[in-house]
Amino acid sequence: MGKSMTGNSVGVVETRTVRVVEEDSPLRLQSGKTLGPIDVAYETYGALNNEGTNVILICHALSGNAHVAGWHREEGKSAGWWDDMVGPGKGIDTNKYFVVCSNFLGGCSGTTGPVSVNPATGKPYGLSFPVLTIADLVKVQKLLLDALGIKKVLAVIGGSMGGMQALQWAVEYPDIVESCLAVATTTHLGAQAIAFDAVGRNAILADMNFADGEYPPTAVPDKGLAIARMIGHITYLSEQGMRSKFGRELRNAKDYSYDFDSEFSVETYLDYQGRSFVERFDANSYLYITKAMDYFSLPRDYGSIEAAFSRTSSRFLIVSFTSDWLFTPKESWDMVCALLADAKDVSYCNIESPYGHDAFLLEPEVLGALISGFLARTHARVRGSSDHVRRQSSSVDIVNTGTRLRVDYELIESLIDPGSRVLDIGCGNGDLLARLVHDKGITALGIEVEQDLIVECVNRGVSVVQHDIEKGLACCADDSFDYVVLSQTLQTLRHPEKVLKELLRIGKKVIVSFPNFAYWRSRLQLSITGKAPVTSSLPYSWYDSPNIHFLSLSDFDDFCKEIGARIVRRIPLVRNKPSPVRLLPNIFAEQVIYLTTRS
Amino acid sequence: MGKSMTGNSVGVVETRTVRVVEEDSPLRLQSGKTLGPIDVAYETYGALNNEGTNVILICHALSGNAHVAGWHREEGKSAGWWDDMVGPGKGIDTNKYFVVCSNFLGGCSGTTGPVSVNPATGKPYGLSFPVLTIADLVKVQKLLLDALGIKKVLAVIGGSMGGMQALQWAVEYPDIVESCLAVATTTHLGAQAIAFDAVGRNAILADMNFADGEYPPTAVPDKGLAIARMIGHITYLSEQGMRSKFGRELRNAKDYSYDFDSEFSVETYLDYQGRSFVERFDANSYLYITKAMDYFSLPRDYGSIEAAFSRTSSRFLIVSFTSDWLFTPKESWDMVCALLADAKDVSYCNIESPYGHDAFLLEPEVLGALISGFLARTHARVRGSSDHVRRQSSSVDIVNTGTRLRVDYELIESLIDPGSRVLDIGCGNGDLLARLVHDKGITALGIEVEQDLIVECVNRGVSVVQHDIEKGLACCADDSFDYVVLSQTLQTLRHPEKVLKELLRIGKKVIVSFPNFAYWRSRLQLSITGKAPVTSSLPYSWYDSPNIHFLSLSDFDDFCKEIGARIVRRIPLVRNKPSPVRLLPNIFAEQVIYLTTRS
Repeated sequence: MGKSMTGNSVGVVETRTVRVVEEDSPLRLQSGKTLGPIDVAYETYGALNNEGTNVILICHALSGNAHVAGWHREEGKSAGWWDDMVGPGKGIDTNKYFVVCSNFLGGCSGTTGPVSVNPATGKPYGLSFPVLTIADLVKVQKLLLDALGIKKVLAVIGGSMGGMQALQWAVEYPDIVESCLAVATTTHLGAQAIAFDAVGRNAILADMNFADGEYPPTAVPDKGLAIARMIGHITYLSEQGMRSKFGRELRNAKDYSYDFDSEFSVETYLDYQGRSFVERFDANSYLYITKAMDYFSLPRDYGSIEAAFSRTSSRFLIVSFTSDWLFTPKESWDMVCALLADAKDVSYCNIESPYGHDAFLLEPEVLGALISGFLARTHARVRGSSDHVRRQSSSVDIVNTGTRLRVDYELIESLIDPGSRVLDIGCGNGDLLARLVHDKGITALGIEVEQDLIVECVNRGVSVVQHDIEKGLACCADDSFDYVVLSQTLQTLRHPEKVLKELLRIGKKVIVSFPNFAYWRSRLQLSITGKAPVTSSLPYSWYDSPNIHFLSLSDFDDFCKEIGARIVRRIPLVRNKPSPVRLLPNIFAEQVIYLTTRS
Repeated sequence: MGKSMTGNSVGVVETRTVRVVEEDSPLRLQSGKTLGPIDVAYETYGALNNEGTNVILICHALSGNAHVAGWHREEGKSAGWWDDMVGPGKGIDTNKYFVVCSNFLGGCSGTTGPVSVNPATGKPYGLSFPVLTIADLVKVQKLLLDALGIKKVLAVIGGSMGGMQALQWAVEYPDIVESCLAVATTTHLGAQAIAFDAVGRNAILADMNFADGEYPPTAVPDKGLAIARMIGHITYLSEQGMRSKFGRELRNAKDYSYDFDSEFSVETYLDYQGRSFVERFDANSYLYITKAMDYFSLPRDYGSIEAAFSRTSSRFLIVSFTSDWLFTPKESWDMVCALLADAKDVSYCNIESPYGHDAFLLEPEVLGALISGFLARTHARVRGSSDHVRRQSSSVDIVNTGTRLRVDYELIESLIDPGSRVLDIGCGNGDLLARLVHDKGITALGIEVEQDLIVECVNRGVSVVQHDIEKGLACCADDSFDYVVLSQTLQTLRHPEKVLKELLRIGKKVIVSFPNFAYWRSRLQLSITGKAPVTSSLPYSWYDSPNIHFLSLSDFDDFCKEIGARIVRRIPLVRNKPSPVRLLPNIFAEQVIYLTTRS
C-alpha cells in the first residue's frame, strides 16, 4: 500500500552467465537422462546483506527471461518484464532486498537449452535435448544459488509457470526457503491446460519448416510457433477482458472484407503477438517448456499434495485472480486447503481483476501491496523482530469493524489461553488477532472475504485466507484450532447451523458472540410500536440490515442442545459495560459471548 | 418430462437433394457476390398436417448435416446427430410434427459449398467460393421450404451455430416463424470466440498441403484441419468436464514417456477427434463456415439487437447451459433482455450441466422436456386451443408452493383487471399465472430461479424466465407491466428496497404480500418466551428460515413513504380467512396484501 509504482528503476543491468554443471560431471535429470555442461544466464539487483537474509529469488514464466527489471544499455530503454514490481521503493524493493532471477533450463535466453550447441556433436541439440521437468529447472536454479554463495532465500516468487517453480522450491528445499509467493499458478495442470499446450505443440510439429527440430535460423517453424502463441494468448486473457478490449471492432475498415485476411482487431492483435513472439523465442524451447509444465504435478511426484506440502516449513502467500481461467482461483484454493490441512502458515487473496491470467503482470497495485507487506513482515520474522505482527493497523483508511466491538475483544481475549492456535472468522483488518499475538503469543489465522481487509492483514503480518465461511472448511482437520472465534457474525450467516457445526468440528473451543434479540428494548419496541426493533446493537432498518437471522440467549441455548454443543461459559453483557449481566440475562443483556465445545 | 428417450427411431431415412437456385438466375449474397446453381441436401421425418401448422425446421451446427435422426441403410446403423431428441415420442415428436433439416450452404454434406464443382471452370470452387453469412444460409433454407411448399414454420430450432440460424429466421421471416428455439447460442460472437475461430483458420491456411485451397482429395490439409478441430473441441467442453473425464490420466503407460508423443488421455482424445473430423469434413468448408459465424451479428445487421428483435412476432425459448463458456449464459441472458425490452413472448432456462457447450447434445432429458412442452403449447396456441395454457399443473411431482397461499391467489386475482399484462416474481410452477390467464385473459410472464419449476411452467404454457430478481430487471422499460406480483417473497430478499423500487419502476401497479411480524402471537412469543417467534405464517426456526427480513404492516407503511410508493389498497388477513381484518390490523393480521404504485 502506498508504494509508488512510478518509482526509480534499478537502472542499467546486465545478464551474466555462469557455468553450474561441467561437461564431465553432467546433471542427472528426473527422466534419468543426464545433461552437461549447463550454463545459467541470470541478473541480480540490490545488495546481499551481511546476514544473508534478504535474498528474493524470482522465477519467470513461459516466455520470460532473466531480465526482470531495469534495462540493458545495448538495447536502449526496453525495460525488464516485471519492472513495475521490482526496483527501489517498488513492491519488491531493491533498496531492501537482493533480487536474483535466472533464465530457466531449456529456455532460449542465455541458459542451456535445445538451441545450445551439443558439445558431443558440435550442432544445436534440437530434439536431442533431454525432456525436462519443473524439478529439473529448480535443481539448476539451486546450483546457481550455490555458485553465488547464497544459503538462504527469504522468498521465492513466481507467477504462472514461475509459481510452479516457487512451489517446487518450497517443497524440495524446505531448509532454504523462508517463504513462497505463488501467484496465478497450480500444483498440477488440469486436462484443459494440457490440451491447450498439446494443440500448440501440434501446430509446431506440423509446421512445414520444423524438420524434426533441425530447422536453420533462416527458416524457423514460424507459422506453427505463432499459432501456439496465439492459442496461449487467448488463455492468458479473459472473455470479458477481450470483449472490452476488442469487442467486434474491425481493424482498418467499416465493412467486412469478405475474405480470409485478418480483419477483426482481435485477429490482428493475435497476429502481432504471434509474429513478435517468433522473433524472440525458439520453437524447440516452446516444446520443452510446455512439456515441463504438463508434467508438473506435485501430487504425482510426492504421492499427494498434502504429502508434498508436509515437507515444507515456509510461510506461503497464494494469490489468484478472479477472471483467470487458465490456472483458476479454484486451483489456488485447493492449494490453500492442502496447506491448511497441514496447519501451514498461509495467506491467500483472490484479487478481483478483469485481466484473466495476465493479471499477474497487470495488477501491480494490489499485488505489489500484498507482496511488499508479506516480504516486510516475513523479513521482520526472520530477523526476530517483534514487529513481525503489527498491533496498530498501518493503514487508517481501511476501517470496517463497525459490527465488531472493543468490549467483545477484551472478553474474548480473557477466554483464550496463551500460546494457542486461534482462527478468527470474519477477522476484518486483523485487530483481534494482532492483539492476541502480542498479548498471548498465539498462532493466528484469519478468514475474511473483503480484499482490502486481506491486504491490510497481510501488511500487518496477520496470516489470512480469503474465503466465505458459508462454504465450510472441509480441508481443516477436526480440532485443528484451539479456538475459533465467531464474533458478531452468526446473525449475518445464511446457514448458521451448518457453519457452527463446522466450527465446532475444527475448533476445540468455539467463541460466539451476537446481539440478543430478546433484549428488553427489542421486546418493548415490537410489542408497543408493532415495528421491527431498532436498538444500539441491532441498529438497522428491517430492509437494509446485514443481520438476517435473529436470536436470543434462549434461542442459542436451545440451538446448542440441538446441534450437540456444550456451553462452557455464557457471558451476557450490555454494550460498553463489560461486567456480566446477572439478573434475567435474556431480558437485560444486549450482547452475549458464549464459549462452547463439542459435547 | 416423462418423454421416453429410449423411444422408437424414425427408422431408415434418406438425404434428398433439390436445386433451389439455377445457374442462370444466381442468388445475390450479403457480400454482393452471386452464386448459382445451388443444390440443397435435406431430410424430412413425420408428415405435414392438412393445415400445414406442424413444421419444425431444425438448423444444424458447424459440423452437422441434414441427417438428424434415424439411419441411412447404406451406412449401417449410424444414427443421426440428434437421434436422442428427434423421433416418435421423443422431445421433437415425429408422430406430431413434420421435421425438416438441410445441410447449410457452404457445407460439405450435399449442399453446394467450396467442394462443389464450379460450372464456370469445371473444377471445385475452393477459395473462389464466395464468403457467406448466416443470413445467406437462412435465405437458402427459405428457398428449400418454398420448394417443399411450406408456408409456415411452427418452430425453428437450433443449437450453437444452428441457434444463430434460428434467430436469423425469426428476425428475417417474422410472418413465417411461429416460434424460435435458440439453444446455447448468441446474437453475435464475442472477441474470444472469433479469436478461437481465427486461430483454427490460421492452422488450416498454414498447412503445407493447403495449396491456396486447391488441394487434391488425396492430400488434404489434414494437420491444419485437425488442429482447428482440436481447438474447437476444447471450447465445446468445460474445464470441470475435462477434469472429470480425463484428469491427468496417461493413455497407455504408468510413467511419463519423456518425449513429444501424445501420452495424456486428453491428448489422445483430441488426436482422435482431429483425425476422425478430417475424414468427414472439408478444410475449405471449415474456413467458410467459421467465417460466417464470426460475421454473425444481429446488432450489426439490424442496427441494434433491440431493432432486430422488434421485427419478430415469434414466441421464443432461449436455453443456455451453466458451464458453456463458448456461448455463455450471459450471452443468452442478454438476448432474453432484448426480447423483454420489446415485450416479446420469451421463456428462458439456464440448464445446470457440467458438459460445457456440448451440453446442447448431451442433456436430452431436461432439454427434451423444455422443447416438447414448448412445442406442444405453441402448437395448441396456433390451433387456437384453450389448452395453450394448462390450468392444472401437468406434473404432480413438482410442487414447491409451500410459501404461497391459496387465499393470497384469490385476493390477488380480485385486484387484477382482465386483459392486463402481469409479471409474477417467484412464480413457482405457474399456478397463479395459469389461473389468471384462464380467468382474466391476462398476458403472463413469470420469473423463477428453480430449473424444475421453469420446466413445469414451460410445459403448461406459462412463459417464464429463469432469473434472480435481486439482480434487477434493467432491460424492462418503465411501466412494462400492468401488474407485478411479489407474493410471500419480500421477506426472503437480500435487498428488499432495491427490488421493490425496481418493481415499482417496471410495473404500473405492484401487489406485495408478506407475513406480519407484529402479529400478536409473534409479539407475545418474543415478550413471554424471549425466543424468536415461530407462528403458522412464520413457521421456521431462527436458524433455518428462508425469511431473512422481518417486517410488520407499520414497517411497510413507513417503507412505502420512504421509497416513494403510494398505497392504493391494504388487505390485512388471517390465514384461511379471506375476510379482511378491520380491527387493529398490525396486531391481528397474520398476513397482508398491498396494492401499490409509484407516487
